[in-house]
Amino acid sequence: MGSIQNEADGRQAKTASIYHPLGPLTGDEFTKCAAILQALWPEETTLRFKSMLLLEPPKKDLISYLDAERSGQTPAPLDRAVYVAYYIQSTAKLHEADVNLTDDTVPRNVRLGDGVHAPNDPEEVFAIEKLVLQNPEVQKALAKLELPKQTQIVCDPWIYGSDGVNDGDLRDDIRLLQCYLYARDPNNPEEADGCHYAFPLPIPPVMSPVDFSLLRIDILPTGLDHTPKPLQSLKLGPPNEYIPEAQNLRTDLKPLQVVQPEGASFKVKKFSDLGRTILWQKWDFKIGFNAREGMVIYDVHYDDKSLFHRLSLSDMAIPYADPRAPYHRKAAFDLGDVGAGIVANDLKLGCDCLGSIYYMSELLNDTKGNPREVPNAICIHEVDDGILWKHTNYRTKRGVLVRNRELVVQTILTVANYEYVLAWIFNLSGDITYEVRCTGILSTQPLDPELTHEEHPYGVVVHPGVLAAYHQHFFSLRIDPRVAGNGNEVVYDEAYALPRDKIANPNGTGYTVKRSQVPKSGGYDLDETKNRVYKITNPNIRNAVNNYPVGYKLHIPPMQFLLADQDSFHRKRAEFTDHNLYVTRYREDELFAVGTFTNQSRGGTGVRSWADRNEELEGDPVVWVNFGINHFPRVEDFPVMPMERITVVLRPAIDVPQSEQGVNKSVLLKDVEDEEGCCLAVR
Amino acid sequence: MGSIQNEADGRQAKTASIYHPLGPLTGDEFTKCAAILQALWPEETTLRFKSMLLLEPPKKDLISYLDAERSGQTPAPLDRAVYVAYYIQSTAKLHEADVNLTDDTVPRNVRLGDGVHAPNDPEEVFAIEKLVLQNPEVQKALAKLELPKQTQIVCDPWIYGSDGVNDGDLRDDIRLLQCYLYARDPNNPEEADGCHYAFPLPIPPVMSPVDFSLLRIDILPTGLDHTPKPLQSLKLGPPNEYIPEAQNLRTDLKPLQVVQPEGASFKVKKFSDLGRTILWQKWDFKIGFNAREGMVIYDVHYDDKSLFHRLSLSDMAIPYADPRAPYHRKAAFDLGDVGAGIVANDLKLGCDCLGSIYYMSELLNDTKGNPREVPNAICIHEVDDGILWKHTNYRTKRGVLVRNRELVVQTILTVANYEYVLAWIFNLSGDITYEVRCTGILSTQPLDPELTHEEHPYGVVVHPGVLAAYHQHFFSLRIDPRVAGNGNEVVYDEAYALPRDKIANPNGTGYTVKRSQVPKSGGYDLDETKNRVYKITNPNIRNAVNNYPVGYKLHIPPMQFLLADQDSFHRKRAEFTDHNLYVTRYREDELFAVGTFTNQSRGGTGVRSWADRNEELEGDPVVWVNFGINHFPRVEDFPVMPMERITVVLRPAIDVPQSEQGVNKSVLLKDVEDEEGCCLAVR
Repeated sequence: MGSIQNEADGRQAKTASIYHPLGPLTGDEFTKCAAILQALWPEETTLRFKSMLLLEPPKKDLISYLDAERSGQTPAPLDRAVYVAYYIQSTAKLHEADVNLTDDTVPRNVRLGDGVHAPNDPEEVFAIEKLVLQNPEVQKALAKLELPKQTQIVCDPWIYGSDGVNDGDLRDDIRLLQCYLYARDPNNPEEADGCHYAFPLPIPPVMSPVDFSLLRIDILPTGLDHTPKPLQSLKLGPPNEYIPEAQNLRTDLKPLQVVQPEGASFKVKKFSDLGRTILWQKWDFKIGFNAREGMVIYDVHYDDKSLFHRLSLSDMAIPYADPRAPYHRKAAFDLGDVGAGIVANDLKLGCDCLGSIYYMSELLNDTKGNPREVPNAICIHEVDDGILWKHTNYRTKRGVLVRNRELVVQTILTVANYEYVLAWIFNLSGDITYEVRCTGILSTQPLDPELTHEEHPYGVVVHPGVLAAYHQHFFSLRIDPRVAGNGNEVVYDEAYALPRDKIANPNGTGYTVKRSQVPKSGGYDLDETKNRVYKITNPNIRNAVNNYPVGYKLHIPPMQFLLADQDSFHRKRAEFTDHNLYVTRYREDELFAVGTFTNQSRGGTGVRSWADRNEELEGDPVVWVNFGINHFPRVEDFPVMPMERITVVLRPAIDVPQSEQGVNKSVLLKDVEDEEGCCLAVR
Repeated sequence: MGSIQNEADGRQAKTASIYHPLGPLTGDEFTKCAAILQALWPEETTLRFKSMLLLEPPKKDLISYLDAERSGQTPAPLDRAVYVAYYIQSTAKLHEADVNLTDDTVPRNVRLGDGVHAPNDPEEVFAIEKLVLQNPEVQKALAKLELPKQTQIVCDPWIYGSDGVNDGDLRDDIRLLQCYLYARDPNNPEEADGCHYAFPLPIPPVMSPVDFSLLRIDILPTGLDHTPKPLQSLKLGPPNEYIPEAQNLRTDLKPLQVVQPEGASFKVKKFSDLGRTILWQKWDFKIGFNAREGMVIYDVHYDDKSLFHRLSLSDMAIPYADPRAPYHRKAAFDLGDVGAGIVANDLKLGCDCLGSIYYMSELLNDTKGNPREVPNAICIHEVDDGILWKHTNYRTKRGVLVRNRELVVQTILTVANYEYVLAWIFNLSGDITYEVRCTGILSTQPLDPELTHEEHPYGVVVHPGVLAAYHQHFFSLRIDPRVAGNGNEVVYDEAYALPRDKIANPNGTGYTVKRSQVPKSGGYDLDETKNRVYKITNPNIRNAVNNYPVGYKLHIPPMQFLLADQDSFHRKRAEFTDHNLYVTRYREDELFAVGTFTNQSRGGTGVRSWADRNEELEGDPVVWVNFGINHFPRVEDFPVMPMERITVVLRPAIDVPQSEQGVNKSVLLKDVEDEEGCCLAVR
């Protein structure tokens, strides 16, 4: 399994050796796809490839394939195809194409309108970071700050956002980056890992990543109101470093090691060159990967029963509270604007996890259409989560206890200043938990030092001269269910007090639970006053004990909805931030809650628009679970924020027939079975 | 440290060797207290001791003592005193006394009214379990069920609850137990750990634990309505056992061991014979124990800064949904009616926790006032909880990551059928989490077998002929704060959208956060639409960075409030179940959210009544965090329920001055310091 890194040797990537319709795109497929598209254009036309995403076969065909495969047949291969977004190099001419790699055709290749922008790519971002500092206008503005000579300047190019009005600014509707500038500690200028967020500067130039020209230099408001001050000598505050060599570290935390003397309990199979099937404790599912969503979970079964067809994080939205220009445009969609796969961390053994860990290295395309490696993008390991269940017979004193072993499938994103630790967690009793840990560094703003002890309307002072604005984090989880097969529906249970009644409820203590169906596509909300619980059920399959439809409960954490107002572009764009869940009818191309192109988007392209079709669900719902936090920063969150955890739990509800009660039972540790063609996870 | 079990050898328990005003009562103190009280009565009058609880010194004196102790002085001892509730044996004559063990006086000794009942004690419960089955009337009723001859009957004596009307029933206002009866599998009658909850019987006798007389035999409704059926031949359904020998166990879960080669990182000091001070990662706090609350956390400091004076679970309430007699009285207060200390599990090495574990064995009184051991009632160990924070510099690719080590102080309660895993969890970044894992076995009801596939208005069928009624679980956490010293206040922050304004909010994206103070005692609620966050702050102490008052945030999980109506006795009695938190002004004797005597109580004795005094808080608030779940049982929850986890997090908010930023920093594992008088935790 360790040979992936060698296989993925840039342009020399070898031909896919294992076919599967869900296999992540291979190096060969990236280069072939690029070549097919390039061949449509004159030789002198250089294409700049943005997204190259596996175009999954139609769900109906895919399900037939997967079912046949599961029943031991060898189904006929389905076409391999790629969705591509590309520019003509150094222009704003954006194209969208579907490329069929099986018959080498391009069934669709269209030029998109001027208002549509692909994400900025890492090559552009790195180039901008350097070029902005070489710009004479920027240098002139920086000079006015009279920083110590040796001061190093760092640029965090930011998504330009959208206010629907001034996006085009000097020229009409072009792709832009807001380049927030910071200093590093002038007394430690060579420390490349210095925390520059302790030294925010008030001049964020606006640059075009298309031709790398400077559009203008904004001046940030650094007071309590909207007025930017004239640039003048800036006195930098003290440093606040997070690297260990700058700390007095604790010396009294003793080692805690997770030891798995017989290795991990899970098995890993290659279902394609880069895709993996995981077999663990009656679970089996496939892990795929792409630039946009990062890890994707497919074809989840438990004890050979179908549960979910596709599970993915569909997008994030992070709007900031500060209404003052240019902060009013500070609103990122970290999947649509950047890409969860693109910014996946290279995970390190003995650092991100304990115990016996298996890594998946993946491939993405660069802007030339060549593969580039994303090493150790996903890690898989087991965790002990304490007690799963216990009962002590108080008469005999005998206690029976089962520990909660979990299988964690994890990826970690770094989006400039910020980190997201994302994990799908499977357990022994049928739960699937999606866990987000928000960590990393706050995106800071400069503040007049004399205001450090003032209350600020839009954020919290986390360091002298440093403001951390309030901001909301939203996540949209896309659940494409297949609980006990096709034909699922979405229902919710609510608890109601029974009315007083001389016979039926004479003491006023009674309550009952009512079930309602989600009949049509739309936005739906939690209601704690009713203990409303949403479920995905299969009305065609009843459990043997009580004849209820089998199903999965959704434990959704509450959240404050988007605070930006009804007419704001934040709201128009971030279509999933106004309901706890959306339910839509399945459509092939609806994977991303904010739409395909989110960069400087104007809205109308996401899940709210789809839900507004008000469609009958007809046994084919897709559930979008939306959750998040409103982050009021703390001093303790700087320089690096201790993680804030948010979890969504998918929990079996009346799902396990009587014969399956072994699910919840005690677990004995015995010898491992033979491998039977499975490759064992790394010890 | 392993010698506690020997020290605590029942009646031979030796005199307290280490004085501390918060030390749990020693064996000697129990016997001395009993002797002092007995001496007030004629020799032939036998006393039956119920609660014997440490009467903590007045808070003001205690704080002076603790502060002096912390500053290295040897403060003058405060009086040791005991709160006692006792009966004259075999009567309903309940007394309450304060016994001063320092000067051997009894400053208070009063007879309580007839309507007030102490908890039933384990000796009474065990006696009832046998006696009820020997009762000829009960035997006659059982005979009508025509169960197989070898069938073993098991009795779960239940809290009688209260409907305020019929409590006294045949005699006026006496203490009662509702004896729910079950069978064990007739095909496996000798299995003492058989799951009798799969065989509920329809005849729950009502017995008096005072004179062990039978009052009546109720007949349970087993249909969909209120009509009990005449007793007739009962066909038992299939068994559903949880013990491992009755299962086909998985064999493919490989060992996962937590290894701490240098032992645990925490240190344990005896602050009294049975009380322990824990020192871990800048934390220090004391752990006490009593019959009512089980473990209690005192005098919590972080980096020698005061945070909380006293943390405890104050009570639970578990009302059931079924309005039909006698289920309308099924509502337990597991601390007030039973006692968290009394039902604390004897925790087992290598079973309840992994790694290096330290146990605290404790002493309680028996009904004669003699000490009885509660072995391994509390366990303390460290856990790795994954990533605490991470930041990767995407330019240098250097990642810095700190893992979240936690210190878990855990106790597990078995209350007849049900288990609660309760833990105070401390972490490296100043968080204190109170975690409840609800597990154990549902309290089941008999159902006519032909209704197994019918929907039931009051519960879910979890097994043929077995109904699990809907029920609510409520917990009330009592927080006696001392954040950065005395003079705390309770505030809440809320996020509000700013109105559109041409200058201040031209794009409708702005929002701000407003702080409000809780001015008076009362019930207060969450409001997710405002992202309302409660904090305990100290307005006198400001953090150096931004001058905000230092404080602790409360992350409170939402809950559906009590469903029983305004006039019900459930609501009158369970005073904490109608608000997410109560804030009261500190009073010495207000420790228990439902009041001191909860058994068959009529209400008016708990936290709602205290809050209704509408008092100014004057820097002396007590915060009662109320949380819970509405349990809609699943088939998967039977026979043993996979835990449902609920957590409350106390999180530092703007609490750590600049010099303290080391809190959030990377942790290096190095050699252990010298012990300096501390005893190291068991390896």
